[in-house]
Amino acid sequence: MKKFNIAKSRRLRSTPYSSRIESQGVTAYTIYNHMLLPAAFGSLEDLYHHLKEHVQIWDVAAERQVEISGPDSYKLVQLMTCRDLSKSKIGRCYYCPIIDDNGGMINDPVILKLKEDKWWISIADSDVILFAKGLAIGNKLNVKITEPNVNILAVQGPKSFKLMEKIFGKKITEMKFFGFDYFEFAGDKHLIARSGWSKQGGYEIYVEHTKSGLQLYDKLFDEGKEFNVKPGCPNLIERIESGLLSYGNDIDNEDNPYECGLDKYVNVNSDINFLGKDKLIQYNKNGIKKKLMGVKIESDSISITETIEIYDNNENHIGELRSGVYSPHFNKVIGIAMLKKPNWDTGTKIKININGKSVNGTVCDLPFI
Amino acid sequence: MKKFNIAKSRRLRSTPYSSRIESQGVTAYTIYNHMLLPAAFGSLEDLYHHLKEHVQIWDVAAERQVEISGPDSYKLVQLMTCRDLSKSKIGRCYYCPIIDDNGGMINDPVILKLKEDKWWISIADSDVILFAKGLAIGNKLNVKITEPNVNILAVQGPKSFKLMEKIFGKKITEMKFFGFDYFEFAGDKHLIARSGWSKQGGYEIYVEHTKSGLQLYDKLFDEGKEFNVKPGCPNLIERIESGLLSYGNDIDNEDNPYECGLDKYVNVNSDINFLGKDKLIQYNKNGIKKKLMGVKIESDSISITETIEIYDNNENHIGELRSGVYSPHFNKVIGIAMLKKPNWDTGTKIKININGKSVNGTVCDLPFI
Repeated sequence: MKKFNIAKSRRLRSTPYSSRIESQGVTAYTIYNHMLLPAAFGSLEDLYHHLKEHVQIWDVAAERQVEISGPDSYKLVQLMTCRDLSKSKIGRCYYCPIIDDNGGMINDPVILKLKEDKWWISIADSDVILFAKGLAIGNKLNVKITEPNVNILAVQGPKSFKLMEKIFGKKITEMKFFGFDYFEFAGDKHLIARSGWSKQGGYEIYVEHTKSGLQLYDKLFDEGKEFNVKPGCPNLIERIESGLLSYGNDIDNEDNPYECGLDKYVNVNSDINFLGKDKLIQYNKNGIKKKLMGVKIESDSISITETIEIYDNNENHIGELRSGVYSPHFNKVIGIAMLKKPNWDTGTKIKININGKSVNGTVCDLPFI
Repeated sequence: MKKFNIAKSRRLRSTPYSSRIESQGVTAYTIYNHMLLPAAFGSLEDLYHHLKEHVQIWDVAAERQVEISGPDSYKLVQLMTCRDLSKSKIGRCYYCPIIDDNGGMINDPVILKLKEDKWWISIADSDVILFAKGLAIGNKLNVKITEPNVNILAVQGPKSFKLMEKIFGKKITEMKFFGFDYFEFAGDKHLIARSGWSKQGGYEIYVEHTKSGLQLYDKLFDEGKEFNVKPGCPNLIERIESGLLSYGNDIDNEDNPYECGLDKYVNVNSDINFLGKDKLIQYNKNGIKKKLMGVKIESDSISITETIEIYDNNENHIGELRSGVYSPHFNKVIGIAMLKKPNWDTGTKIKININGKSVNGTVCDLPFI
């Protein structure tokens, strides 16, 4: 597997934490929302084991916010997602498929309701702000749409609760999953949500005040020593085992939410008005032709840089592998694949080609663990 | 200057040429429109000198196309740009600022008119397709918006004309700058434009037929031997010397076209209807408060990974440096800077900090050469 440098420039935006993570040993980056997102600090497996046992601090500033405020803000946010937000509450996070008029996925953000007329769409990797602006202009909606200077720090892992309690007090451990509230640090109020892109538990700190945010960054490492804190980043092994989907990897604009297994976030039977509703009603009625599933593959390594085609035992093309990694837990490769009907049943035998060698695999449910 | 690997995945899309350029020695990538764009093949300076003398083949598939077709396609394309396209001709390319309702830059593509009702917007690095979809949905325009499977190969450098003539015949040398036409190769018609992101002359081949496109890729290297052909990529030195602007580096959504020196592409006095027209009329009337200019800096190296602040001799903040590189031609650093009024006059003295050392510079016009 050849390695290539990333050519940095202003266009690939740095984060307030970049200089810190670079002195802490980041070794690889990916680009996400035109911004640097750390992708490795040495061994992926070491950090995987560490994440499941201790606590990590992640620079996930690349999870940008699209702020939508103003009298028509609910109308616009609801227009963009098939999830019913009519009963949504201030102080809660909502995982929402964002879809276009064909029902195709455009993003799968977490949406935070800050006020009745102020929302943050915490986006995956696509320019949702441009979609929102286009829709608002075209529909003459009275909204303000901006990308605020918010740079998220994630605190992830089972010991994140103890670490955050040490800094912010008992109250932070009482917050429910996908709730958020404001906590003071160094004279500023910081929005903190109980969320994060791992299934090991933790928090995301939406840092609006960069100066105190950087003090908080350092404080987390100081106070975290007793919990064996380390710098980290979203971990490919952990996120696939947990079945966390990645827009652009597992999902793209050619997929609808049903095909992605997001049925519970599609409210076609509600009264709400959203883009692509007619199309989704049709998909719901007529069924889908492909489906995102887990696969287990008899191999001890894989490196996915683009789609890998999937075949059945008779060399028929039956789908494509979109993400994959060696899992120490299963002692084989696990992955996320889009499989064509009727090949998505659990237990279906598959074949893929890894480095010129045909290997066997089996379809399974998501998540793996 | 620390180096970091790029963490590849399906989300950072490969191009049809990726395996070829990797065997040809690409050493660094950037990400552009969620796709791999080669950024270095070893020495930047060596390739700069080579580009100015010989011919290079560039994998610029990351210049994606947004295809807009249908009865309202002209209406939508015109709505997005302040350049008057009412008299545009089939077979021509148009450099067009795309702006939002505030007059802020969203992209600066080249737009190709393929038919009266079919356009390709050949985009810089932002998801223009989402802006176009939002506008089309909101305005109920009868258009089809897609990202076609087009992967551009650029043939750049003074010997590109001889090389292309050898393959496609005399006709291709008769094409005017920013014209395009169709040329046959290996049984397929390929759209070829006389354009490219250098000022050394050349062509861009809009490859829609991947199989014959790959044959053409190999043919260009075979036939190019006598012209000293090499694989290359947009060259930072050459593009800054030539004053070619880069969206995300030199320009962003906080800038309007006048501030970027794109006055000749802003047709506020025409009858056409475009977004942000009211705002641009105001800017035109009241003048601007900042302006993109060249700067020459007394240093023999620079590495810009984010904005570098610019001061005057009295430590007043007067602007920001957005791109920069050491130029062998000028034997100093040259760069592109956004300067606040009234500090943008040619000859204005500036100071910036490079690696902890204060260095002097001077404002100058763009392009440098």
